[in-house]
Amino acid sequence: MLTLSEINNKVKEYFAAETFTGIPRQLYEPIDYTLAQGGKRIRPAMLLAATQMFGGDLETARYAAIGIETFHNFTLLHDDLMDQSPMRRGKPTVYRKWDENTAILSGDAMNILAWRYFLRTPHHNLHRILQTFEKTSMEICEGQQYDMNFETQNDVTIEEYMEMIRLKTAVMLGGALKIGALYADAPDNDIELLYDFGIKIGLAFQLRDDLLDVYGDTATFGKQTCTDIRDNKKTFLLLSAIKKASQQQKERLQNLFAVSPNDTTAKVNEVIDIYNALNIRHDVEKAINNLHNEALSKLGLISQPESDKAPLYELTKQLLNRQI
Amino acid sequence: MLTLSEINNKVKEYFAAETFTGIPRQLYEPIDYTLAQGGKRIRPAMLLAATQMFGGDLETARYAAIGIETFHNFTLLHDDLMDQSPMRRGKPTVYRKWDENTAILSGDAMNILAWRYFLRTPHHNLHRILQTFEKTSMEICEGQQYDMNFETQNDVTIEEYMEMIRLKTAVMLGGALKIGALYADAPDNDIELLYDFGIKIGLAFQLRDDLLDVYGDTATFGKQTCTDIRDNKKTFLLLSAIKKASQQQKERLQNLFAVSPNDTTAKVNEVIDIYNALNIRHDVEKAINNLHNEALSKLGLISQPESDKAPLYELTKQLLNRQI
Repeated sequence: MLTLSEINNKVKEYFAAETFTGIPRQLYEPIDYTLAQGGKRIRPAMLLAATQMFGGDLETARYAAIGIETFHNFTLLHDDLMDQSPMRRGKPTVYRKWDENTAILSGDAMNILAWRYFLRTPHHNLHRILQTFEKTSMEICEGQQYDMNFETQNDVTIEEYMEMIRLKTAVMLGGALKIGALYADAPDNDIELLYDFGIKIGLAFQLRDDLLDVYGDTATFGKQTCTDIRDNKKTFLLLSAIKKASQQQKERLQNLFAVSPNDTTAKVNEVIDIYNALNIRHDVEKAINNLHNEALSKLGLISQPESDKAPLYELTKQLLNRQI
Repeated sequence: MLTLSEINNKVKEYFAAETFTGIPRQLYEPIDYTLAQGGKRIRPAMLLAATQMFGGDLETARYAAIGIETFHNFTLLHDDLMDQSPMRRGKPTVYRKWDENTAILSGDAMNILAWRYFLRTPHHNLHRILQTFEKTSMEICEGQQYDMNFETQNDVTIEEYMEMIRLKTAVMLGGALKIGALYADAPDNDIELLYDFGIKIGLAFQLRDDLLDVYGDTATFGKQTCTDIRDNKKTFLLLSAIKKASQQQKERLQNLFAVSPNDTTAKVNEVIDIYNALNIRHDVEKAINNLHNEALSKLGLISQPESDKAPLYELTKQLLNRQI
């Protein structure tokens, strides 16, 4: 039984053994560049932890783990282009380092490369595994479209927001776990519980991300705080505040999120003052805790010894207990 | 045994039975718009003709036929964005009708949708079918990258050009035929011959496209002639001319293909004069005939009755005997 840290090392080892170069080099260099930048590689670790939990051989799921991370990185590559984000993981994004057409085409090739990895190992569950991967991939596109729609949609509800982050973020965690379980022939009931666990964790993770943007400590979190406010992004914090606000506060928030001043200090401070007055931090923490507890209860119901679930408990802890 | 025309009707019927709409509509409308525009649907017809030739049930290959056309249309959608082409099949391209981000994301979803169709019907050869589809898809990206590289590469050889069009155009015809044959459990040797037939037809088709741009009749071909010359595109005609030209003619061609005058009449006329002086039309027609004959000889070697190959002979005739 591998610990989470040993699973993470396995993922590193799997990636280190791959070559993402090829010809024409103009197509493959951006893929290699993107996949060499690492990141937390949460999805392949989850996938392998699920395989292990049900007694599967990690090697059977090896290329699916690489495939799912390749797909995830493809979505980041195209999202960065669509959002015109200049930097990712401290380095220039592909469309900045090369150009937009390179980002489009190399991304397309990465999407296909993910399938190549999934097809590398035959498995009697392969058809179901690929259907899970396909459904998850499509839902991520749907989530990204909702996210783009929200930029100009002024009446986004909390329910719509939760559905957007379910599609954009959570299904990929649920999907990775389900795929890992399919490699180990897990029972359908357990697969469903595991998928739901992944969804709840994914939702909680995104809400925590929203929270940390405003209430996180830059030194430990490493992210510039309040970028969501500066970028007028509709987050769980803003939508919760609007729902709870007085008419006057609501109008003030809507006005503040409609402008982009050069110096954002006053704007950021005023938004945080309203959030504080409405006790939004407490509401978001409560929502995260609820999702966290629901996730743990799903994991607890799975018909495997608790000791075999240890890496997933550990991963949950790491994902949700980041310094605030 | 269906005739080619009956197979084409089958393809139409299959597409008419599908719905490409969905939510969020902003994601699916451009997919529906793209797939509703028709086009010749050569690839699904080839796929089904191959299935039929080996005695397979067309219904088993139904969704693969839709899948391959969906993928082909996805590549057109992203190519139009990368090339900044305003029109396709007489209508505004997706990035023009909507915007660039819509074109990127809807294209990504179409790429995934192609896989959804391929996964719709289980088949004992599905793993091999999907590997063929994946390899073909990736090669098309490679071909598109070479095509983009050639825009700024001044020493493109005829061999490099043939490899580019093999990847960008021909492998999808070979791939469609191979996939169709796999649905009918065709023998490996026949599959290889059929794939090679598709490659040769694809290469000949592209050379004919290059030829028709300069020597075609607008009335029957429906395409503005000499756009390749106006766009300074490196075609088989130009590369053949450069290879054969005197030093003086070569320099003149290189200069003419380095400028973009507002009035292109004089430029086009001078290029055509050089092509005529070098007898390029004859050379290209010879190359097309050679490929055509090689293709027919591959098809002839396949271990099925000639009568069962009739739709593919007919398709070849239609593809290569367009008015010139």
